[in-house]
Amino acid sequence: MENKQISERVIERLPKYYRYLKDLCNNQIQRVSSKTISTALNITASQVRQDLSHFGGFGQTGVGYDTEYLKNAMQEILGINKPHVAIVIGGGRIGQALISYKGFVDVNVFVKAVFDIETEHLSTVSGVEVLNVSSLEEYLQKNRVDVAIISVQKEFAEVMAKRVIDAGVKSIWNFAPIDLHFGPDVVCENINMSESLMRLIYKSHF
Amino acid sequence: MENKQISERVIERLPKYYRYLKDLCNNQIQRVSSKTISTALNITASQVRQDLSHFGGFGQTGVGYDTEYLKNAMQEILGINKPHVAIVIGGGRIGQALISYKGFVDVNVFVKAVFDIETEHLSTVSGVEVLNVSSLEEYLQKNRVDVAIISVQKEFAEVMAKRVIDAGVKSIWNFAPIDLHFGPDVVCENINMSESLMRLIYKSHF
Repeated sequence: MENKQISERVIERLPKYYRYLKDLCNNQIQRVSSKTISTALNITASQVRQDLSHFGGFGQTGVGYDTEYLKNAMQEILGINKPHVAIVIGGGRIGQALISYKGFVDVNVFVKAVFDIETEHLSTVSGVEVLNVSSLEEYLQKNRVDVAIISVQKEFAEVMAKRVIDAGVKSIWNFAPIDLHFGPDVVCENINMSESLMRLIYKSHF
Repeated sequence: MENKQISERVIERLPKYYRYLKDLCNNQIQRVSSKTISTALNITASQVRQDLSHFGGFGQTGVGYDTEYLKNAMQEILGINKPHVAIVIGGGRIGQALISYKGFVDVNVFVKAVFDIETEHLSTVSGVEVLNVSSLEEYLQKNRVDVAIISVQKEFAEVMAKRVIDAGVKSIWNFAPIDLHFGPDVVCENINMSESLMRLIYKSHF
């Protein structure tokens, strides 16, 4: 499938489609119209049809989309049908909450290790091994890691991300309150809680 | 200040400007050009000038922006110069991590209580009182709450949000893996971790 031309705005909506289709499948709903998807996701129906058309002819006029088929296609498009291995850098409060984050199972992501500077009092967190960050490069040499999850303080986020990138990791999921950007070979998603909170407060005044 | 016409895309960038200006002030840097802001935030310099022009004439050609002045102006524009009271609904892993989230102080947000269905084994979390969710309405009648932070399971997110909205709360910060939308009187920011993770995995394949 040739997805290179898919715009950032479409990519942003893909997970919403997937999540909604999964819910429909779980509720044994076999067909869905673009109108129904549109209402549920707060996207116009024509936008839904246009978005889904990027990924081939799944819809049928008057009959709608086959939910199971479309869900599986979405899963494949997103790449979450295959397992991905993750490590967490930073075993503080956010890091620890992330390790037991239930959403990983849904998308076939498995957290295999946590790296921290303080490892004396922690040998495992929720069953995941805690390792000293000094052994990071050695670990990455011996183990395949697809995603590094950064949950250290702002000051250390960039340097830690660079260490894992230098060791061959290509995907960064960043929770530190700083936007990380790297070259074209590395993908990065920033979860910026403080920015979201500021937007909320800003919008609450109007 | 008349901010009604500010687009969603500009609002998304506001917190980035604020955060960057705060860093500059902390490092005693008194003036900054749109070019420097542009490089740091990965936004074009003309976009920076255009964005900042929405908020009045802070810049001076050849001299740049006064960081302290612009930071304070941003703080006021964002509304984070005034304190906001928050409660957390859902005292699970994510809820607990949120209570001790350091970013609240920066934006003048104070978490005053946590509501959960199970309160027997917890009386406080990080110094914040844990209350039974059955007392939610009574609490909201007696206490001013600006922001409700939703960190319950997906199935309960909408109903819990509606309960706080019915009791007069106007701002929802949602961490449950479902997009919440309400009428024009309620503002809502969804932190959707699973969508971000799916986008990351999707992008990592190209």
